[in-house]
Amino acid sequence: MKIETILPNRADKGLPFLLQYENVARYDDGTIYVLDRRVYPHKVEFVRCENYHQAAQAIRDMVTQSGGPRLVASLGMVSAAREAKAKPLEEARAILNQAAFELSHARPTTSQDLARQIDHLRRLAEEALIHGQDPEEVTLAHTYRVLDERYRNARKIATFAVDLLPERVTILTQCFAETLIGFTLLVAKEQGRDVSLICPETRPYLQGARLTASVARGLGVPVTVITDNMPAFILSRKMAQVFISAADVITLDGHVVNKIGTFQIALAAHYHGVPYYVLGNPSRSHAQISSVTIEERNPQEVLQAMGVPTTMEGVQGYYPAFDITPPHLVGAVITSKGVFSPYDLARNFSVESPLD
Amino acid sequence: MKIETILPNRADKGLPFLLQYENVARYDDGTIYVLDRRVYPHKVEFVRCENYHQAAQAIRDMVTQSGGPRLVASLGMVSAAREAKAKPLEEARAILNQAAFELSHARPTTSQDLARQIDHLRRLAEEALIHGQDPEEVTLAHTYRVLDERYRNARKIATFAVDLLPERVTILTQCFAETLIGFTLLVAKEQGRDVSLICPETRPYLQGARLTASVARGLGVPVTVITDNMPAFILSRKMAQVFISAADVITLDGHVVNKIGTFQIALAAHYHGVPYYVLGNPSRSHAQISSVTIEERNPQEVLQAMGVPTTMEGVQGYYPAFDITPPHLVGAVITSKGVFSPYDLARNFSVESPLD
Repeated sequence: MKIETILPNRADKGLPFLLQYENVARYDDGTIYVLDRRVYPHKVEFVRCENYHQAAQAIRDMVTQSGGPRLVASLGMVSAAREAKAKPLEEARAILNQAAFELSHARPTTSQDLARQIDHLRRLAEEALIHGQDPEEVTLAHTYRVLDERYRNARKIATFAVDLLPERVTILTQCFAETLIGFTLLVAKEQGRDVSLICPETRPYLQGARLTASVARGLGVPVTVITDNMPAFILSRKMAQVFISAADVITLDGHVVNKIGTFQIALAAHYHGVPYYVLGNPSRSHAQISSVTIEERNPQEVLQAMGVPTTMEGVQGYYPAFDITPPHLVGAVITSKGVFSPYDLARNFSVESPLD
Repeated sequence: MKIETILPNRADKGLPFLLQYENVARYDDGTIYVLDRRVYPHKVEFVRCENYHQAAQAIRDMVTQSGGPRLVASLGMVSAAREAKAKPLEEARAILNQAAFELSHARPTTSQDLARQIDHLRRLAEEALIHGQDPEEVTLAHTYRVLDERYRNARKIATFAVDLLPERVTILTQCFAETLIGFTLLVAKEQGRDVSLICPETRPYLQGARLTASVARGLGVPVTVITDNMPAFILSRKMAQVFISAADVITLDGHVVNKIGTFQIALAAHYHGVPYYVLGNPSRSHAQISSVTIEERNPQEVLQAMGVPTTMEGVQGYYPAFDITPPHLVGAVITSKGVFSPYDLARNFSVESPLD
């Protein structure tokens, strides 16, 4: 089944290579191909997963990140549905249950809404089997519709963001805001804005240099990579007029949890009178920042660069993956419902929405 | 001539490998061996210079940095003096003049005081020749005496710095403050302080990870490397009680020009109430910050890490080598004369001192 059959008007149109659905992950006759974001753009390689176990393994191995694991986990359920369809119902159910469990537990911090999405696919597959439909087709169609809806949502957020930008603007960003930065640049270009981008490289994994810069380049947006010690200098020289990032979590009390480094850029932006806009919907599962734990990753990862050791043996590393930017450094929270003050989120986002 | 003959009580005693005189650069029978700081500690290699041309080339190639080029340029003059000594006086003079010119112009931004030091060596060599002394011995002895005096000076500054530290302290630093951070850690240990260090890796050249962390490790000081996007988080978690850096220039109006990234760490330190101390003597050749130009280096350098490209072709880089920290973010300027407010430098440092 081709994507175009399910989505005659797909929302990724105009986005560059890295953000096109097939280049996040694609499904072809039971096999899932996942773009290896760990080596992109140095190498363009797809990791091949022949079944849901291998899909879970690819997620565990961090072959993809950001929105990628969500698609891979969903395609893993499609693969499980294919495996289940020739089996007796009880056995088919067991396969689907096992797949849903494995795929939701591939990473320790899988979000509740991803777990919900996987469980929803499990139920769809089961119902399809009961009603004599093809569970593989049903789950694949659903996966692509959800994916497309997420992209439309990102485009809405990006459009609100572009509304706040000056006609001629250089955006400073951080890490890889995926569809949110992709659509912001695309919509700005569609509107004829004169837009350019500055990306901190975002050590230790260099997502800024490897992914964000590639997306800008793919859109023909002039892009400059800097090292992570340069944002304050960039801002002091008025080389950027706005700082924009996505967030791993926006809490209802207005704190932004995002890739390490966001906080110090927000601080420098505030000092220089440059607004910081965070893009994304607040999380109703985090009413307060106190409920967020900052994940620490393997400290060895900061002791290498592109696989080469950077220091002497016996030196320790430390790798907090995220930091917290307090609301007084946040100029606006730009959501699919519009633009909000970081102090006015609880009232507007406490109730469950289908996009969460 | 062994160093110990000239300096029976050398000031580098107790310092680790990287800061010992012979491991900055050593002179042996006309040959200069320069530790290649570009690859240390991954590899411990000395670049061999057989004459002053090669010494100038090593400086141009940035084999060494920080205090290194000063010693290499001086040893280049020693090598020129050796070459000159068998020659008729006019020819010897021509060699010395040529060497002084080449060595002072190896880098575009060689400081005035290094130029003065090289010219002083040239005059010493010439006088030695006239008075039938050995110009090689005279210049070598002078080079080591000046080097030793610089180390004693650094120890003085470090001792004033340690006086300001709490008994138990984790220092956050930036880049490689060379003897200043080396002596700060050494003096703290001598005084029985419980001291540890956090170094940002300092991209693109990773001097923090490669050099500073190695110096701390060599002294047995617990040391943690972080990436350059982590200092604000470290400070927010109260993991460091002081931020210390050296400076390329401290202007008489209290601005600190230092390795890119210093400014944003100082900003984060100030926000969190953590003092920032800059170590070094103010420069009387810079009465005001307006006289300082920020050097921009080859932008290609930020587009690689440890020699591996980090982004897509066509992406631009930008590499300002230094940034400027304004006096209101500086808690104290710690000099060989003692501790000063950044607002009170002109009165104390406008007059030339032999150490400048």
